[in-house]
Amino acid sequence: MEQMKPNTANSSPLTPLGFLDRAATVYGDPPSIIYNQTTFTWSHTRRRCLQLASALSSLGIRPGHVVSVVAPNIPAMYELHFAIPFTGAVLNNINTRLDARTVSVILRHANSTVVFVDCASRDLVLQALSLFPENTQRPILILITDDTVEKTSPSVDFMDTYEGLVSKGDPSFEWVQPNSEWDPMTLNYTSGTTSSPKGVVHSHRGALIMTLSILIDWAVPKNPIFLWTLPLFHANGWSFPWGIAAVGGTNICVRKFDAEIVYSLIKRHHVTHMCGAPVVLNMLTNSPENKPLEKPVQILAAGAPPPSAVLLRTEALGFMVSHGYGLTETGGLVVSCAWKEKWNRLPATERARLKARQGVRMVGMAEVDVVGPTGESVKHDGVSIGEVVMKGGCVMLGYFKDPEGTASCLKNGWFYTGDVGVMHEDGYLEIKDRSKDVIISGGENVSSVEVESVLYNHPAVHEAAVVARADEYWGETPCAFVSLKACVKEKPTEKDIIEYCRENMPRYMVPKTVVFKDELPKTSTGKIQKFMLRQICRGHGTTPLFSFTKTLQIGVNWWHVRF
Amino acid sequence: MEQMKPNTANSSPLTPLGFLDRAATVYGDPPSIIYNQTTFTWSHTRRRCLQLASALSSLGIRPGHVVSVVAPNIPAMYELHFAIPFTGAVLNNINTRLDARTVSVILRHANSTVVFVDCASRDLVLQALSLFPENTQRPILILITDDTVEKTSPSVDFMDTYEGLVSKGDPSFEWVQPNSEWDPMTLNYTSGTTSSPKGVVHSHRGALIMTLSILIDWAVPKNPIFLWTLPLFHANGWSFPWGIAAVGGTNICVRKFDAEIVYSLIKRHHVTHMCGAPVVLNMLTNSPENKPLEKPVQILAAGAPPPSAVLLRTEALGFMVSHGYGLTETGGLVVSCAWKEKWNRLPATERARLKARQGVRMVGMAEVDVVGPTGESVKHDGVSIGEVVMKGGCVMLGYFKDPEGTASCLKNGWFYTGDVGVMHEDGYLEIKDRSKDVIISGGENVSSVEVESVLYNHPAVHEAAVVARADEYWGETPCAFVSLKACVKEKPTEKDIIEYCRENMPRYMVPKTVVFKDELPKTSTGKIQKFMLRQICRGHGTTPLFSFTKTLQIGVNWWHVRF
Repeated sequence: MEQMKPNTANSSPLTPLGFLDRAATVYGDPPSIIYNQTTFTWSHTRRRCLQLASALSSLGIRPGHVVSVVAPNIPAMYELHFAIPFTGAVLNNINTRLDARTVSVILRHANSTVVFVDCASRDLVLQALSLFPENTQRPILILITDDTVEKTSPSVDFMDTYEGLVSKGDPSFEWVQPNSEWDPMTLNYTSGTTSSPKGVVHSHRGALIMTLSILIDWAVPKNPIFLWTLPLFHANGWSFPWGIAAVGGTNICVRKFDAEIVYSLIKRHHVTHMCGAPVVLNMLTNSPENKPLEKPVQILAAGAPPPSAVLLRTEALGFMVSHGYGLTETGGLVVSCAWKEKWNRLPATERARLKARQGVRMVGMAEVDVVGPTGESVKHDGVSIGEVVMKGGCVMLGYFKDPEGTASCLKNGWFYTGDVGVMHEDGYLEIKDRSKDVIISGGENVSSVEVESVLYNHPAVHEAAVVARADEYWGETPCAFVSLKACVKEKPTEKDIIEYCRENMPRYMVPKTVVFKDELPKTSTGKIQKFMLRQICRGHGTTPLFSFTKTLQIGVNWWHVRF
Repeated sequence: MEQMKPNTANSSPLTPLGFLDRAATVYGDPPSIIYNQTTFTWSHTRRRCLQLASALSSLGIRPGHVVSVVAPNIPAMYELHFAIPFTGAVLNNINTRLDARTVSVILRHANSTVVFVDCASRDLVLQALSLFPENTQRPILILITDDTVEKTSPSVDFMDTYEGLVSKGDPSFEWVQPNSEWDPMTLNYTSGTTSSPKGVVHSHRGALIMTLSILIDWAVPKNPIFLWTLPLFHANGWSFPWGIAAVGGTNICVRKFDAEIVYSLIKRHHVTHMCGAPVVLNMLTNSPENKPLEKPVQILAAGAPPPSAVLLRTEALGFMVSHGYGLTETGGLVVSCAWKEKWNRLPATERARLKARQGVRMVGMAEVDVVGPTGESVKHDGVSIGEVVMKGGCVMLGYFKDPEGTASCLKNGWFYTGDVGVMHEDGYLEIKDRSKDVIISGGENVSSVEVESVLYNHPAVHEAAVVARADEYWGETPCAFVSLKACVKEKPTEKDIIEYCRENMPRYMVPKTVVFKDELPKTSTGKIQKFMLRQICRGHGTTPLFSFTKTLQIGVNWWHVRF
């Protein structure tokens, strides 16, 4: 049979944006978003997104422009996942926990034309703009006010408010279909403070495949009640903004939360699904509110491996825990430890050992493998170590304005994750060591390289190396090993170093521990042996509740993720 | 932001074939297929499919070749949905209920290189081959034996048996990835007896999108127990062969069934999901076995509209009925009447009216609309009639070797379904009249044009027109209106005409009723007014249980489908 060419009837660009039209038709009246006393229906949400897209177009936003958002999990944040790409522009979510310098670097690198700024991040963004070099084009600022936080009147810095834009827009605006399904739709920075920020670009097609894949893998039913405990700015909420529209769910938005708020929202709204980093589970189990749930709640977790004790406590409360592994570069979770029924008959330790493995690819991915230095598959024996590689529809287009960085991880038909793992005989992947430069603290990625580069600027520091230290609450915290310059007369204390870091990086990146050494352990070629430091780290201070290698022994049921 | 090109890591061709590898890894041991006393696991199924693909390759099967299958819902039939495309070849399912002439036309049009023949269809296929013109290349025949039916020893006509091929194959065969996701994967004939058979070609990409879309729309959970009451040869079982692998379900195969068998299989295997034409529901509700189910069974139905009485009876038994609308050209169901919770509060007649509508597109489709003769959308008022058009990833590549037929339905960026409908104010589609030439009898499509062409060959027939007649059991049966030639001396009886049809077409196409008229009603331009005939038809013989227009009044909850 000869090849038949695609035609215009069957090659409509794949995109998840149409899910909103469909949700408005199918689920017009049920709530799309609930936030404090505000409830929107899917008809409202579609109308508001179209108005916003229309207003953005009137501001001159065109396909390919980048529009940034600095906001927590509020309704505007959800709406912008449709409204911005509705104009053909690229959605750039920025972590609200970053420091002004990093935000400044990102906004300049992304060349943002408009920035939506939540009232609580106003100072952060204004400070970031003040760091722009003179004569640099500045983005238009739109303020997202929130009377539940404070009565804010926009200053001259802001062209308009979010609701002002919405009210100016035309609800009959026809949203801009991508020219190609490969058109960029999102841009997420995984690292911004070094000289080469990594801006992960995903296409409309990638976002669609990711969305369908996670819905099937997590077996999300129609009309779930989804509590937004996962920051939307983390890999665009693992594609759930589009997924919840696809299944007509209700988004329970929440600006800031603690265990009490989460339990109260679960109860009030009959929450069925939520996602989050392990720190969320820690919080839920350690809370005095943690009485067993009336109905089971599905929780999809990804992050550093937490202790099995936390897992067991969480499940005992009625949470059904699923785990995934993914990276910003894959748009969300793309591997999950699909559980086999027969495993339920094994002893607990054996079950725990099996659960500690990352698992198998979801349906949206073509292949996941572990390869050696020359690119060949390692033996599937659970012992042979190699780098985790993947291919498939969820893999990013590349890093923005970074062809070298892109080429170094997208090569030979694979995406090289930088994570080290083994493939078990039964085809299940297990991560053995995380990407060496990343520490995951409270669900946030901390690049050790970035922390080190700040430490190296301290006048007294000779050498610095930062590794992860297990932490009961945060999962991990950065631990800095520092050797001081011989010439230093007034030696800085641990507190001094920490104070210096606070002034020069986002709070979550600041080392919680500083260990002074006369000399850092090195290889024969002069490379610092971080492996040795991690060992020292485990013996330092309070006994860590868990560590990555210990994980294997105690059979922790957690998923490794880099977001 | 500039366009970023797809790369080899993220542009792996979309295909559902990899689901089998994944199922074998994830669900290695649980049953993949159960048939009588035989049970296969997913590891078995993958191994057998690879062996079969290997053996087919050894026979010279290459990408683009067409391999046909004439078989009911037996394990081999399921396996071939992977094994044939694993070689890069195109799967061509042939309806076992066709007559030899039609099968012959299809095999020649498809240029089949290999035909898998179930033992019960042996005579049919051999007869079909005997109709091949001399000096025509004949396909290799492989016999699927089945000891539960008869002990068959293959005759000289067959090169091998199915199990013979399986045993010769190499389980380490690496299946052939499509070069492009647009490569053809399946070929289904919707009409074969006229001079221009319509061979619907779907790509790997189309099959994947269809599969993910239906899984999400029907909210299929993991590990469903799926009873194959829907013929796999109908639009490749609406893509469920691949879907069941994606969610690690168990396929309950069954060669032939009646209500007793279905109820017994539901009970024995704890069936959770099944599909079928309305005639299956009729059968289930009319059976003496029809006591309420122990557990609810999801049933996805598509076919001619059945009476609401049947629907209510079916639901009363514990079946949860969902409905869909689709065509072979869309690879399965692509529209469904997503139910709104608020409708539950409406009076029964109003609920029934709403349920009679076909509904909204599933997530795999980009758009569904109703257009007037010049291609403009009709008013969304529930009254303005037009042709149903669609676009999106599930639409076929086109008709095989029929660029004209393809161009006539794939145009202006849309697939023109030939079905006539209205769009309601709330965006729900309702089919108002079926494609004029198609009668749906027991879930089979009967082209009235084809029946007429046979009738016109009868020596006594002057004019003939065939329309659908409502039938309590079959949904519809063909009703022939015939005027005889004036010169005819010995006028044929109804029985004579029916007998003549039996000799010249598949049984299910044979008119059940023949009405003689001196003259058929015509328009001023001489076109037979089928609309008038349908009216006459409704008044003829036993009162029909329902009719299409009546459907609207009694609020029938059924879905229109052409497969």
